[in-house]
Amino acid sequence: MISVQQALEQILSAISPLGSERVSLLAALGRVAAEDVDARRAIPPRDNSAMDGYALRWEDTLGATRESPVILEVVEDIPAGKVPEKTVVAGTAARIMTGAPIPDGADAVMKMEETEKDGSRVRIFAAASAGLDIRRAGEDVRPGERIVRKGDVLTPARIGMLASVGRAVIDVHQRPTVAVLATGNELVDVDEAFLTEGKIVSSNSYSLAAQVLDCGAVPLQIGIARDTREDLIAKFNAALRADIILSSGGVSVGDYDLVKEIMKEVGNRMQFWQVAMRPGKPLAFGTLGGVPLFGLPGNPVSSMVSFEQFVRPALLKMMGRRNLFRRIIQACLDEDVQKHAGARNFLRARVEFRDGRYHASTTGEQGSGILKSMVLANGLIVIPEAVTHARAGEEVTVQLIDGSLEGMAEPEYLKD
Amino acid sequence: MISVQQALEQILSAISPLGSERVSLLAALGRVAAEDVDARRAIPPRDNSAMDGYALRWEDTLGATRESPVILEVVEDIPAGKVPEKTVVAGTAARIMTGAPIPDGADAVMKMEETEKDGSRVRIFAAASAGLDIRRAGEDVRPGERIVRKGDVLTPARIGMLASVGRAVIDVHQRPTVAVLATGNELVDVDEAFLTEGKIVSSNSYSLAAQVLDCGAVPLQIGIARDTREDLIAKFNAALRADIILSSGGVSVGDYDLVKEIMKEVGNRMQFWQVAMRPGKPLAFGTLGGVPLFGLPGNPVSSMVSFEQFVRPALLKMMGRRNLFRRIIQACLDEDVQKHAGARNFLRARVEFRDGRYHASTTGEQGSGILKSMVLANGLIVIPEAVTHARAGEEVTVQLIDGSLEGMAEPEYLKD
Repeated sequence: MISVQQALEQILSAISPLGSERVSLLAALGRVAAEDVDARRAIPPRDNSAMDGYALRWEDTLGATRESPVILEVVEDIPAGKVPEKTVVAGTAARIMTGAPIPDGADAVMKMEETEKDGSRVRIFAAASAGLDIRRAGEDVRPGERIVRKGDVLTPARIGMLASVGRAVIDVHQRPTVAVLATGNELVDVDEAFLTEGKIVSSNSYSLAAQVLDCGAVPLQIGIARDTREDLIAKFNAALRADIILSSGGVSVGDYDLVKEIMKEVGNRMQFWQVAMRPGKPLAFGTLGGVPLFGLPGNPVSSMVSFEQFVRPALLKMMGRRNLFRRIIQACLDEDVQKHAGARNFLRARVEFRDGRYHASTTGEQGSGILKSMVLANGLIVIPEAVTHARAGEEVTVQLIDGSLEGMAEPEYLKD
Repeated sequence: MISVQQALEQILSAISPLGSERVSLLAALGRVAAEDVDARRAIPPRDNSAMDGYALRWEDTLGATRESPVILEVVEDIPAGKVPEKTVVAGTAARIMTGAPIPDGADAVMKMEETEKDGSRVRIFAAASAGLDIRRAGEDVRPGERIVRKGDVLTPARIGMLASVGRAVIDVHQRPTVAVLATGNELVDVDEAFLTEGKIVSSNSYSLAAQVLDCGAVPLQIGIARDTREDLIAKFNAALRADIILSSGGVSVGDYDLVKEIMKEVGNRMQFWQVAMRPGKPLAFGTLGGVPLFGLPGNPVSSMVSFEQFVRPALLKMMGRRNLFRRIIQACLDEDVQKHAGARNFLRARVEFRDGRYHASTTGEQGSGILKSMVLANGLIVIPEAVTHARAGEEVTVQLIDGSLEGMAEPEYLKD
């Protein structure tokens, strides 16, 4: 029997980040940077106007008011995108649009609302201060400044930032291909559900593949291996071109030994663990032709929970992520729960925000075959190994498994 | 001047969910169900064994211990996937694997660990109770039970559940195609960044398209429209096949009127709002050939914040989502902030969980051109219209804009 933590450490120590590939900006969304990026130019590249108005010398506007405006000669019109040609000298101004470069000589911008055009001249109704409404070159980013670090997840804002400094492509970590293989003679695929008696659909083939996709990795659906030597070997061989192999079923104590036997035979350093957790006690881990191989339990809930605890962190590590773990919150337990000492329990739970704190309650029957408990869950209540009772009102740790939890709390500020 | 809430209400009232399309299970991940799904079969379909062991009649095992085992005749071997052929009568048992159907006559399963095989017989070392280690037909899902509701987001668990009941395809809401168009003579595309003087890269073309992708919608990148009548009309025409059109730039007061003029000319019921918010005050909304058209501000931060407040909820509504809004939390403000009364401010902020509560601090200079403030942010502090000061230590509302916030809190429970 090993602890969740020991299993996780052994797994993560066997996993390395994949190499990089170079992708275009939009393809990089959600990927992890594999290079540090330093700005090759300033943002903004030149001093420019923050307003539509007039670029001028602030000292010329001293004392200007609506009653006694200052009058300046307009020497140029600078729409956005135009390079100024004239210098603004005392007594002159240039009409300028938002984002247009500040002409030489000017040191402030007076916004349109405080001006009035009069032929080739403009009346200025307010006094400017030095630098008013000028956005300075480099005020967002200085040349050479690091704008993306290795390991950063590329968000929409980072992608905009990369575009700003003229980067059209970026090195990101490759995405692992993840073979998903179910084992068991009791299993049929989804289109045989009504053709068979006494069989069950291999839902793990779909829930695990969806979990893989959800991590940003690429599933390779190997299908169902029958419990025969030939079929198991053939399916494991078909899985070998993946970066990581997930099989489900066949790793419990007392299971027909064939899956384990084949794993031992074709795999390297296969370990068949009893992990002190519930659900998800049996877990196999090793490599197959150098490819990390996870043998997950066959029960639908156990396989999903084991994926969350062990496979997801491994996949995120392969993808270069710094943070490998789901968010953890503390919540008020809304019911009594009991368990045996010795195993860490992961109770499928619904987390809500109510009366200023998080509340967690289980999603009903917690059997490892009760997929409904997982469907309704947005979190897993983690009850530590030594604990046997947790009572309503106690604070518990919850691992959030729904990344967004959108709409979990009412958007109060919208109710004005 | 209208409020954020008024603008949002007008926008959402003009937006309807798109129709449905039928996709296969994995393609449905993250999509929104457009149909109610009732289970066409029970899960599990038959009573089956929760353990590897022996199916037997519990009364036969009364008083069995390791010292005085009960001995039963083994009449059949039922591996997973086999339909039992024999009936278990008094004094007999069937060897059974996890997931295999319980044979007629049996009413309990004794796990392998409490048994010992002896030729054609088995020694039972413990007393069973009625129903022990039998998973009942329908204990997860009863036939006819609703397993997915219209508007549910299809998570890995729901996809596994659909597979379980033999559904290989499901109706989901279509994804909107979203045309993204930037306007302005000062803009160049990312590959012209170093060819030009006085121009800036149209980063909005990328950050907005990435925000569209992030919502699960499909960007259509129309590129940059020059400030000419012909080019604007051509680009708006190219955008018309989208389900929604986003343009950025050209909607501020005093901007060259051309963009607004063309919007009014080609569009319907175009409204040019001054929204009481900062950043993001100017906003245009209307339709173009029946297609909803958003005119967003041109500043990089303003366009992203306006997208968050107005476009994202609209896209989620089109995709059939029930919850249109980002998660809202209350956090301790870690610095003093000041603003003018009258506008709702959205301060780019970093949210952390520390000492049992959320803390928020701004990401530095908050100018609407400072994209770095957005790059570093995982939330927007919402300072209400009437407020002019918020002091360190006060509680503030924060809209979380990084869906996951993964790794935000240390996974404490891992440190055992």
